[in-house]
Amino acid sequence: MTLLREAVGQALREARTSQERTLRDVARQARVSLGYLSEVERGQKEASSELLNSICESLGLSLASLMAGVSQELKVRESAKLSVVDAA
Amino acid sequence: MTLLREAVGQALREARTSQERTLRDVARQARVSLGYLSEVERGQKEASSELLNSICESLGLSLASLMAGVSQELKVRESAKLSVVDAA
Repeated sequence: MTLLREAVGQALREARTSQERTLRDVARQARVSLGYLSEVERGQKEASSELLNSICESLGLSLASLMAGVSQELKVRESAKLSVVDAA
Repeated sequence: MTLLREAVGQALREARTSQERTLRDVARQARVSLGYLSEVERGQKEASSELLNSICESLGLSLASLMAGVSQELKVRESAKLSVVDAA
């Protein structure tokens, strides 16, 4: 199964890059370290719920809309895996 | 803003109780401690992505479907908060 932190990291990175913003900018505004945000985006660190909210605020996103994107992404990944199983 | 771990905990508890299963049963099958699962359900502990997947498997849920429920719950909570603000 996909890991939640990977799907969350991907959604955060997509939101940030679609706004053409740097890690440094978003991290500063969210009051998290650049290294922390970078690890979260790469799915290497679990974001605490509190810091995830700070990052969402910095991106002008509600947690609900971030998680709607995450849930869609997880669906796509699960369908892709099922297709591989079907084809095997 | 609502905390993600609270919405995840609520969704896990709803899935478990709708299956009429005990904390002990789900925890044992997911190979997590009963105390850990209880704290996760109450939104007091962040579940690691790995253990969240184990808990989902134990509940026969995909991560995608759990997170679809979480995303819906977050939307409802945000709308409720907006209504309170509108009424003020």
